[in-house]
Amino acid sequence: MNENGILVVVSGFSGAGKGTLMKELLKRYDNYALSISATTRNPREGEVDGREYFFVTEERFKDMIDKEELIEYAQYVNHYYGTPNEYVLNQMKMGKDVILEIEIQGALKVKKRFPAAILIFVMPPNAEELKRRLIGRGTENMDVINARLRRAAEEAEGMEGYDYILINDKIDTCVEEMHRMIQVQHNRASNNMAFLSHIREELKNI
Amino acid sequence: MNENGILVVVSGFSGAGKGTLMKELLKRYDNYALSISATTRNPREGEVDGREYFFVTEERFKDMIDKEELIEYAQYVNHYYGTPNEYVLNQMKMGKDVILEIEIQGALKVKKRFPAAILIFVMPPNAEELKRRLIGRGTENMDVINARLRRAAEEAEGMEGYDYILINDKIDTCVEEMHRMIQVQHNRASNNMAFLSHIREELKNI
Repeated sequence: MNENGILVVVSGFSGAGKGTLMKELLKRYDNYALSISATTRNPREGEVDGREYFFVTEERFKDMIDKEELIEYAQYVNHYYGTPNEYVLNQMKMGKDVILEIEIQGALKVKKRFPAAILIFVMPPNAEELKRRLIGRGTENMDVINARLRRAAEEAEGMEGYDYILINDKIDTCVEEMHRMIQVQHNRASNNMAFLSHIREELKNI
Repeated sequence: MNENGILVVVSGFSGAGKGTLMKELLKRYDNYALSISATTRNPREGEVDGREYFFVTEERFKDMIDKEELIEYAQYVNHYYGTPNEYVLNQMKMGKDVILEIEIQGALKVKKRFPAAILIFVMPPNAEELKRRLIGRGTENMDVINARLRRAAEEAEGMEGYDYILINDKIDTCVEEMHRMIQVQHNRASNNMAFLSHIREELKNI
């Protein structure tokens, strides 16, 4: 069967609980690797190159763009952020299922370039619950919360482009559901062409 | 989330262990229904109309063909066999995941008509194991076994048209794998369009 890793893109509304979900998934199973982004911003205290980010110069980043070394990238304020091919592809070759946590526009770009990638959209069971969670954090004022909800409504327009919808109601169930969702991909016929050719040859020569 | 059942087509080489697999799946989980075929052949002793088959006259069967009441059908020797729409669609509406156990040509027809259906191909871990199992049955002579192996080699040509490959090595693991494979489909974005529209509306009006 398929021994290469699966490429998984995870997106979701702010407040849907993606962060906790990823942390828990990586804690429970050792077949996952989280993609590390490259950025031109400076490391903050405690951040280590190659752990939180790959810290690169703007010159190097533009060079990566030119040489198509990035799966996708975007510019926020004055800094670039992007997903290097190399780390992702190496991890996949080593059999790791690689997770990219990126927003909707980046996700659709990845799918175009890697049709075998699966796109998972994480969401709360309903809009009221999303609002409740954002308020519950207690870290933002109502203006920020309302802006986030409007942003969620915008992002919701792209949900149909995703392969799977994952409802984060109870974190424990949700982690297991996500794990199953990804593991099932190893059985896709399109991920097992070498195995299929092999068994076909065997049957001819038996 | 999606409350309609999933349409599942299961095919596989003779000797791959499909029969035991289906029986075990239906025994363990109550969310499945096995599609019942219509046939023009006479009931054998112990067979009950609507349990093993729907027994119909040839006139009625041809009428079903004309009225497009069959998902797929075929003629073997002097009798017709086919899958009636009605039973399958009713069970799906009731939330049952409906399983059709049919061969490769029928499977591809179903996929064309119901693109949301998933096609699962069950196979042994390797060709030697297939041969071993066919011999192990002890019910057929070598001519029959070799004919089955040749037939398997032919069928193997269509495997790429399937969505998933399921290796039946240990029956217990295989049943669980099949169950997961099917259950994950309830989370496909394309199976949850109504839910997605609903949450989008909620987000607009919050």
